[in-house]
Amino acid sequence: MYSAQDDLTDIYLSAVEEELINAVNTVDEIGNPLLHEMLSYHMGWMGEPTNSESRGKRIRPLLVLISCSAAGGDWKNALPAAAAVELIHNFSLIHDDIEDRSSLRRGRLTVWKKWGIPQAINAGDAMFALAHLQLLHLNRSHSDSITLKSIKILHQACLHLTQGQYQDLSYENRGHVSLDEYWTMVAGKTAALLSASTELGALSALDNEQICKCYRNFGKNLGMAFQVQDDYLGIWGNSLITGKSNKSDLATGKKTLPVLFGLERSNEFKECWNKRMVNKESINKMVHLLELSGAKSYTQAKANEHLDRALHDLSDAHPTGFAGNLLMDMATKLLYRQG
Amino acid sequence: MYSAQDDLTDIYLSAVEEELINAVNTVDEIGNPLLHEMLSYHMGWMGEPTNSESRGKRIRPLLVLISCSAAGGDWKNALPAAAAVELIHNFSLIHDDIEDRSSLRRGRLTVWKKWGIPQAINAGDAMFALAHLQLLHLNRSHSDSITLKSIKILHQACLHLTQGQYQDLSYENRGHVSLDEYWTMVAGKTAALLSASTELGALSALDNEQICKCYRNFGKNLGMAFQVQDDYLGIWGNSLITGKSNKSDLATGKKTLPVLFGLERSNEFKECWNKRMVNKESINKMVHLLELSGAKSYTQAKANEHLDRALHDLSDAHPTGFAGNLLMDMATKLLYRQG
Repeated sequence: MYSAQDDLTDIYLSAVEEELINAVNTVDEIGNPLLHEMLSYHMGWMGEPTNSESRGKRIRPLLVLISCSAAGGDWKNALPAAAAVELIHNFSLIHDDIEDRSSLRRGRLTVWKKWGIPQAINAGDAMFALAHLQLLHLNRSHSDSITLKSIKILHQACLHLTQGQYQDLSYENRGHVSLDEYWTMVAGKTAALLSASTELGALSALDNEQICKCYRNFGKNLGMAFQVQDDYLGIWGNSLITGKSNKSDLATGKKTLPVLFGLERSNEFKECWNKRMVNKESINKMVHLLELSGAKSYTQAKANEHLDRALHDLSDAHPTGFAGNLLMDMATKLLYRQG
Repeated sequence: MYSAQDDLTDIYLSAVEEELINAVNTVDEIGNPLLHEMLSYHMGWMGEPTNSESRGKRIRPLLVLISCSAAGGDWKNALPAAAAVELIHNFSLIHDDIEDRSSLRRGRLTVWKKWGIPQAINAGDAMFALAHLQLLHLNRSHSDSITLKSIKILHQACLHLTQGQYQDLSYENRGHVSLDEYWTMVAGKTAALLSASTELGALSALDNEQICKCYRNFGKNLGMAFQVQDDYLGIWGNSLITGKSNKSDLATGKKTLPVLFGLERSNEFKECWNKRMVNKESINKMVHLLELSGAKSYTQAKANEHLDRALHDLSDAHPTGFAGNLLMDMATKLLYRQG
């Protein structure tokens, strides 16, 4: 069973990669070899090292294709949508890395570190334009009406993404951030594109608003669960697997879910947090105080709650056969990952 | 005659402004007042001063609406396309200002100067997403097929824009840039969006590939002429009208058309240019050497050549009535402007 699922995933992944390479190649049509190189480098096809880590997990395009199959469609017809969401994801990563001043991404230098901020902003913009051009290829196998619906879904997700990113950037410089604000931010920054991925996959298979809504909600809740789990691992994860130093989110002062919960519930944690001491002793104390405040179990419970909702949405969609199992399996694995 | 043309332009302009305001308002739907403020500020509706200068000339949306009328359509149906091209133009300005480290735009601080680079990159991305969402409203008065064609035109223009910007950024750091490379860069950076504007206007009126092509070429050649004239004014313009210090392009070392021509034709100019002296005497000497090399008359001739081509394309399109005259008038005015 597992081996057959892995085979199917490999088939999807290699088809996605080919579609992505073709999309990115169009940027070089009028002689822009370096622009092409920047995009290919970021996608993990050029530069050292180029391996599966440098390409990332391609979770979003996989969700598009598997959702399409699970909704009874031919996954090959959903390839333009799969490539488009991955290109949007990568456009946002190129810009996020500049905004967060991150030097490393997937174990390699970020685009702005290699080519400077001006070219990196523009490379992200080119990736954004490529994504939308790619989505138009849906029209080869779908009606004008389905293509237009798909375009609207992706554009709305992009707007939502920038709204979430705006909130994330704003919260960095603010003293108090409420839990409500956290949920709104995550809905944009993480869940919007996952939600678009599953909905686009389903829409490629069938034009049924009720079913598409179930897939949309599945992706949204999966995205929320995914982000909460990410926040959990940022403090209680196994650093050998996450590749980040343990408790690193406490050291960088990131306002993650457990931190916001702790700030609301524990004055002792708040005092410690406000001192911004980043030595080992102080970080261990913060972890202890978070656990005492109930932040660890709250975060775990929230991740589980969203996963439950996601699986419930998926079950409402009545996914078919093999791909349906694969989606359930993916959701569970994403949540119970250690890194 | 002039007064009636001005009246018509005013009607177009106020309709465009309303459409733009509605588009930008959608960004605040889930409570992003500051993101909304950044976009409104950049569009010239908020902050000090807010006047017609702070909003820019809105040339592109005017070209959309007048092209639509000239091609026999109802200009109101082209409003979504008009707003979309102006939003794309402004997205690119927000990012260009970061990339060029420009502090001022339309007499006011640039977005990144006011809110920092991270928020400014993201505000540009939000404007990009809004533009494409706005274009989808074409579907209210046009078929799915026309809407899809319009979307493809705008996305291709966006990709072309980023290719031109990539070249512009690359040329800054390079010793030799050929005239051919200059023309390719301008075709992307300036002409692509003007070309999309006139084509989108025509397509809103009628689905005739031959006529739409004439409008597309009209916009393209107008864009080329416009950029060449801009380069001309950067050296020989009246600083009181351009608002830039006279000969400023020589002081900043911008590789404009007359400079590239001078570098190819005059060793004396090349020597002087390579010294990078920016005192008044040295700049006056460069201007003199450029004139001796024939760069001034070459630049004027090229601007006229592209304007002639543009007017020829327009005449091939057989524009109707009043709007046709308005387009011709606009083209001529753009070229013979002094600032």
